[in-house]
Amino acid sequence: MAQLWNKGFDINREILEFTVGNDYELDQLMVKHDVYGSMAQAAMLKKMGILTPAEFKTVHTELKRLIELWQQGKFVVKLEDEDGHTAIENHLVKQLGDLGKKIHTARSRNDQVVTMSRLYVKEKLLNIYGHSLTLAQHFLALAKRYRHVPMPGYTHMQRAMPTSGGVWFDQYAEAILDDLQLLKTAFQYNDMSPLGSAAGFGVNLPIDRAYTAKLLGFKKVQNNTMYVAYTRGKVEAATLFALNQLMQTMAKFSNDVLLFSMSEFGFVELPKEYCTGSSLMPQKRNGDVFELTRGKANIMLGYFLSTVELQNVLLSGYNRDTQLTKDLMVKALHLYSNTVKVMSTVTEGITLNKTKCIAACSADIFATDKALDLVKAGMPFRDAYRHVAAHLDELETIDPIKNIKSKAIDFRPAQTSWKANSKWLSGEQRRWQQTVKHLLALP
Amino acid sequence: MAQLWNKGFDINREILEFTVGNDYELDQLMVKHDVYGSMAQAAMLKKMGILTPAEFKTVHTELKRLIELWQQGKFVVKLEDEDGHTAIENHLVKQLGDLGKKIHTARSRNDQVVTMSRLYVKEKLLNIYGHSLTLAQHFLALAKRYRHVPMPGYTHMQRAMPTSGGVWFDQYAEAILDDLQLLKTAFQYNDMSPLGSAAGFGVNLPIDRAYTAKLLGFKKVQNNTMYVAYTRGKVEAATLFALNQLMQTMAKFSNDVLLFSMSEFGFVELPKEYCTGSSLMPQKRNGDVFELTRGKANIMLGYFLSTVELQNVLLSGYNRDTQLTKDLMVKALHLYSNTVKVMSTVTEGITLNKTKCIAACSADIFATDKALDLVKAGMPFRDAYRHVAAHLDELETIDPIKNIKSKAIDFRPAQTSWKANSKWLSGEQRRWQQTVKHLLALP
Amino acid sequence: MAQLWNKGFDINREILEFTVGNDYELDQLMVKHDVYGSMAQAAMLKKMGILTPAEFKTVHTELKRLIELWQQGKFVVKLEDEDGHTAIENHLVKQLGDLGKKIHTARSRNDQVVTMSRLYVKEKLLNIYGHSLTLAQHFLALAKRYRHVPMPGYTHMQRAMPTSGGVWFDQYAEAILDDLQLLKTAFQYNDMSPLGSAAGFGVNLPIDRAYTAKLLGFKKVQNNTMYVAYTRGKVEAATLFALNQLMQTMAKFSNDVLLFSMSEFGFVELPKEYCTGSSLMPQKRNGDVFELTRGKANIMLGYFLSTVELQNVLLSGYNRDTQLTKDLMVKALHLYSNTVKVMSTVTEGITLNKTKCIAACSADIFATDKALDLVKAGMPFRDAYRHVAAHLDELETIDPIKNIKSKAIDFRPAQTSWKANSKWLSGEQRRWQQTVKHLLALP
Amino acid sequence: MAQLWNKGFDINREILEFTVGNDYELDQLMVKHDVYGSMAQAAMLKKMGILTPAEFKTVHTELKRLIELWQQGKFVVKLEDEDGHTAIENHLVKQLGDLGKKIHTARSRNDQVVTMSRLYVKEKLLNIYGHSLTLAQHFLALAKRYRHVPMPGYTHMQRAMPTSGGVWFDQYAEAILDDLQLLKTAFQYNDMSPLGSAAGFGVNLPIDRAYTAKLLGFKKVQNNTMYVAYTRGKVEAATLFALNQLMQTMAKFSNDVLLFSMSEFGFVELPKEYCTGSSLMPQKRNGDVFELTRGKANIMLGYFLSTVELQNVLLSGYNRDTQLTKDLMVKALHLYSNTVKVMSTVTEGITLNKTKCIAACSADIFATDKALDLVKAGMPFRDAYRHVAAHLDELETIDPIKNIKSKAIDFRPAQTSWKANSKWLSGEQRRWQQTVKHLLALP
Repeated sequence: MAQLWNKGFDINREILEFTVGNDYELDQLMVKHDVYGSMAQAAMLKKMGILTPAEFKTVHTELKRLIELWQQGKFVVKLEDEDGHTAIENHLVKQLGDLGKKIHTARSRNDQVVTMSRLYVKEKLLNIYGHSLTLAQHFLALAKRYRHVPMPGYTHMQRAMPTSGGVWFDQYAEAILDDLQLLKTAFQYNDMSPLGSAAGFGVNLPIDRAYTAKLLGFKKVQNNTMYVAYTRGKVEAATLFALNQLMQTMAKFSNDVLLFSMSEFGFVELPKEYCTGSSLMPQKRNGDVFELTRGKANIMLGYFLSTVELQNVLLSGYNRDTQLTKDLMVKALHLYSNTVKVMSTVTEGITLNKTKCIAACSADIFATDKALDLVKAGMPFRDAYRHVAAHLDELETIDPIKNIKSKAIDFRPAQTSWKANSKWLSGEQRRWQQTVKHLLALP
Repeated sequence: MAQLWNKGFDINREILEFTVGNDYELDQLMVKHDVYGSMAQAAMLKKMGILTPAEFKTVHTELKRLIELWQQGKFVVKLEDEDGHTAIENHLVKQLGDLGKKIHTARSRNDQVVTMSRLYVKEKLLNIYGHSLTLAQHFLALAKRYRHVPMPGYTHMQRAMPTSGGVWFDQYAEAILDDLQLLKTAFQYNDMSPLGSAAGFGVNLPIDRAYTAKLLGFKKVQNNTMYVAYTRGKVEAATLFALNQLMQTMAKFSNDVLLFSMSEFGFVELPKEYCTGSSLMPQKRNGDVFELTRGKANIMLGYFLSTVELQNVLLSGYNRDTQLTKDLMVKALHLYSNTVKVMSTVTEGITLNKTKCIAACSADIFATDKALDLVKAGMPFRDAYRHVAAHLDELETIDPIKNIKSKAIDFRPAQTSWKANSKWLSGEQRRWQQTVKHLLALP
Repeated sequence: MAQLWNKGFDINREILEFTVGNDYELDQLMVKHDVYGSMAQAAMLKKMGILTPAEFKTVHTELKRLIELWQQGKFVVKLEDEDGHTAIENHLVKQLGDLGKKIHTARSRNDQVVTMSRLYVKEKLLNIYGHSLTLAQHFLALAKRYRHVPMPGYTHMQRAMPTSGGVWFDQYAEAILDDLQLLKTAFQYNDMSPLGSAAGFGVNLPIDRAYTAKLLGFKKVQNNTMYVAYTRGKVEAATLFALNQLMQTMAKFSNDVLLFSMSEFGFVELPKEYCTGSSLMPQKRNGDVFELTRGKANIMLGYFLSTVELQNVLLSGYNRDTQLTKDLMVKALHLYSNTVKVMSTVTEGITLNKTKCIAACSADIFATDKALDLVKAGMPFRDAYRHVAAHLDELETIDPIKNIKSKAIDFRPAQTSWKANSKWLSGEQRRWQQTVKHLLALP
Repeated sequence: MAQLWNKGFDINREILEFTVGNDYELDQLMVKHDVYGSMAQAAMLKKMGILTPAEFKTVHTELKRLIELWQQGKFVVKLEDEDGHTAIENHLVKQLGDLGKKIHTARSRNDQVVTMSRLYVKEKLLNIYGHSLTLAQHFLALAKRYRHVPMPGYTHMQRAMPTSGGVWFDQYAEAILDDLQLLKTAFQYNDMSPLGSAAGFGVNLPIDRAYTAKLLGFKKVQNNTMYVAYTRGKVEAATLFALNQLMQTMAKFSNDVLLFSMSEFGFVELPKEYCTGSSLMPQKRNGDVFELTRGKANIMLGYFLSTVELQNVLLSGYNRDTQLTKDLMVKALHLYSNTVKVMSTVTEGITLNKTKCIAACSADIFATDKALDLVKAGMPFRDAYRHVAAHLDELETIDPIKNIKSKAIDFRPAQTSWKANSKWLSGEQRRWQQTVKHLLALP
């Protein structure tokens, strides 16, 4: 089918393929979201009098049908279409004739693609937010289960002081909950309506941007028209930074697990159905899933850095470079989504070996507690420190369980934060569902 | 002076220098903030009964005196001290004897350094927030001044449609205000009290972490003790990401200015006292300040990436690697602070050349407006588009000022957001000042 | 089919998919190269007496048949196979029974995958080297064509001194030829045989690593067995750095073209069949191919950075994280290959507009030449500089063609370097073809 | 003193400080190298007849005196000078009057700064090359010492097969020697003379670029004048990539050491004078030097990435952004130099604990050797693998020393490469010394 901008001569085929890239495949994922945008646009054109109520009805019905076709795999965007927007407009023109040619009034592909992408991203982010909360919940459950299982805490990669398995797991719950604040900020960036900014310079028609924003469930209009193109990359960078931080959290956990499940430690045990083997070495049981999670954090970092650079110093107004952020965003969401789900699975099966954890609590890690006991007895801390340092050989092993129970360990703050996040998520999910329902039922 | 951990033998000098690095110089910047931390710690030790009211009074008085010495340049941290914490403890021991040895009770340098750094960062961020708002204000003022000065809007680096100087400037105000949301999130990360987490595993003493947090003006306690070490790097990464985005915004503006002040455009004019010359070419007047701002965004990116990598997969618990984030943070805050101030200066002197802006509004950029005029007259958009494309030669120049006035240009959203940000900042600044006042006046 | 390491229980399906990822698809690309590795391994097993000459013959014949099946699309690696190595071994066992089970003697998938990947990369790099030389050749041809077409040279994005279109194009030839030195270094890293390092610790069999290296056309054996796993990531990082630098070169050229083809300059003209249009603006002709090349350099940067990070601080010995470098390498080679070919196409059609180039040579850019004329007449340079600076208004336009002809412009160094590179490439290509021919004809 | 380009009005002070940055401090490090450049330039001006032999003699004598002043700390570049080039020219004018004003004939600060920087970098790289070879030598010595000390080899962070301490150390020798190939390529990039390219567009004077290149010891002239500005950033990126890879090698070694010196392993022992302590925990002995080396690799990565980005898509011709590469280069050279020296120190004191290494060679790591024994006895490998996997409990511990002696371990390839590198270095160092000697003695 012809490109929207086709003026009668053909572009060089190699260049077409190079410029289109995998855009048509990406847009296949977002047909639904693009149609939502067109529904809101059509509703506004009706409000403006450019579409009659009957025309709107016809267009809206056809758009609903298009979603169904797409859900049945019968609407496929092809390379020749260049992108999904073109495929949809061409479909409408084919079905509805002149009426189909009106749908692009007062918008450009520039605002259309951003509208579609942000709707797509918003839906995915809510999804991902939920998976992340599930993982945090697993960490909290593990924390509670191993609250009083002592293990050595390490600093400088050396045994330092006693801590508990619960503290170790709980820190990952807290980390995810903190990371989610970045995701929330990113969600808010995505929650601005670009529709009506057209090619970045508005249009000389009395459009109602607040109306389309409301129909599409955007919290606000992204006001400055030129700024919309600018935020392609900027919004994505903030979103991928949040995903990057979450990946790093899972990577750090994976690295801990890999270390603590070495035979030299034996603290962590993995069910054998989580492990792979070696083609040469018959005895191996490897925690590949954790190595790959650790590794995939570096893949995410690459996506993120590419995105940061794509937002880089380009002349104001739209530049095609930024189109590449769409692919990075889709890949990043997919990567994160897969990883957080796998992590949720494995955190259900992971166990601590209490015996090995306790056995590792050697006498030296109680040195500080001993010094503080001397402090309680009245010795200045620095003197107590020097006294213990000079008598390290005389340190007695203390019952590590008793010791760990004597310390303040509190998982309620994470629990409270978890609930607040969960509530926020439910609210946003409800808002999204109502938006979609309302769009599909537009009169 | 001896290191806090000195146990009677000397570390290899080359290794000492390598490990200490410039830490002692960085800590020199933060003596005040470290003393604040010690004041709160001492107050809590008094509450716990480890210091008597009289001892607390003595320590508090000496700590206040230490701030004065430091402000007068008479308290200098040296390489031999290893860091500021040691220098301060040694000073107290020298002045107060055994009493000075008590101050480190129930804390470690691990929580102490994070407490100090976060207080330092919080104060700097508030400062920087203010400078950023000033710059946004300048952009808004420029936007208003040039609201109806037309200039070509570009897409794909080609003249596309008419826009106005006001829209161009306003987008940078909106960008900064959006970037500041990231800085606010970063501020909140820094607003958690690490004090009392000790070496990452708590202490077997009944400390009151909420009390010290409150004294130091932290919004909440960072609960999980192990998580504190983990967030060295994590918190910094979020902070530097915000600074990176702000730098990118200034870099993008600089790049626009450099292009628009080329003789081929002539839209932007720079006062000659902002420009430098060439050693070889007598006629040159260069906008180095904009080139360097563009370049320095890449320096910030390096700081940011180093920080992201330093938070990377390290074993749970403190690792010395993360100490390097302190230097990166200080450098990044300094770089951003300098740049935002220079940008505030130059945005006071920059002007648009109305004549050249108007002259650049050639007939072709009105093609879309023409097509939409046909739409108003009833033609379906895609037909109107094709009609205009086929008759490009017949396009008439439209009065660009009239044209630009016919479009919706609104700077109130940025203005409203600016005020909300400004209010938030005032509140936080007041909170900080009250915290400091209260700390210095502890009974 | 079963995994090579299957010991009788099944791995969790979700985890299998997560860990296998797209490995089986990547390996589909490299079946031929993996078979080459197996041919050499089999030849060595024959030499060692583990395979009889007849057995070797049988295996070799089957391996040749496998390449044919693969070339006809009849040999497909599936997710269930986990990877290509498994698919091939399973195929051999199915066809040859016990004989097929012998092929993995004295090697591991660890050295097998690196052998396969390096052969694949080597072949691709030679290919890419050729395309890069073609592009350099185009730049040289353009340089010669526009040797004496004057245009302003810019510094600080301001017109500075006269230069020529030839100089502008020639710098890109020189850049590519310099970048290729990095690619050559990368090629040499890939030209070390890992085969026989097994899982990283050798084998207790008298294998002949020099023999397999020679059969496979590797310049040398990678000696240290543990170091082989280490270089997964290290070798890839060096390769991707070279590709990154080449992409940057094309991106810089693209950025120049985008600027110089703006209507404000008009120096560069693009054939319309290289340009795309706008869905909203009827008049637009956009150089998307250059914007995307500029943008794709940031994609490459992401691949590169991910790779650098994947080589990062992992425990000595193989870690599964590094498997992810295979996908990055394949993507990077593909991206570069596509881009360099498109750039070769467009550099065939690009032209300079001589009239506009000359018109842009305004009087001010001859200031330095004027100053140096005063030097020739005896004035000290700094005085001449100040004299001209004080009399800028009196500068006369000089004939820019005459001016540019008076300067030394020499394209022979690039030409000479091009020939040397071309000769190196031919030699390596011949060596590769002979290696393959010899492998397929092993007795 | 006045800037070279000062034309009678003053630049805004804040902007001056922002644009000059720490350039004057960096140039203080390179005064000697800038003077070398001026000596060659003066010699050429004499050859051209612009300086008389007597004038040359006067200038050359003053330049030699300037080096002495600088070596005695009596020549200091100040902020007001803007940079070292200005400070030197002003000094010459002050001492020699009109003669001093002639020195800048036929060059610009653009080629002058690159000339100076490359000479500085070349000298430093030779130095660094030497230190790296020393470190490689230490690794080779350790490899020989621990050739037959067995230890478990790890894959997937799990014990896999037996290897030896010698193999572990030798891989780092091989890694450094490979990394040095990148440093050699980088050295060659720096070994091109930019002098005479002036501001990027040559000069209308019959200069002899080959002559100054030869005097300064550059292997060749960097031919294309515009390309010189382009390579600011490009050459630096290649150099910092080499340093980054070397840092990564030391970081990986450090990470191994940190792990292997954990009490759970105990393979590696560090002299106590290499270790630091904790302020809270009396018993700690920490390998901070290794943690910081690991961390500093991330600092280097930041320098590198900033540099890569600074070479990014800028308009052809000089852009001030690239000036920032000078600071990054100096910092990177300094960082690497410090780290490689510290690593050389610690690799002299590090020891392996043979008893613990042997004790860790548990029965399971001999499984593969057992399977291959079955292969020797005639069983197909995959059957042997499955047999051993099914009978893991029956594995007997093999004498690990005997086992490791049965495998091919060869340190001669690294030794041979070390010698070749050492020879190359000696040659280049001799060439540099002769160049300097000749420059200082110019008639």
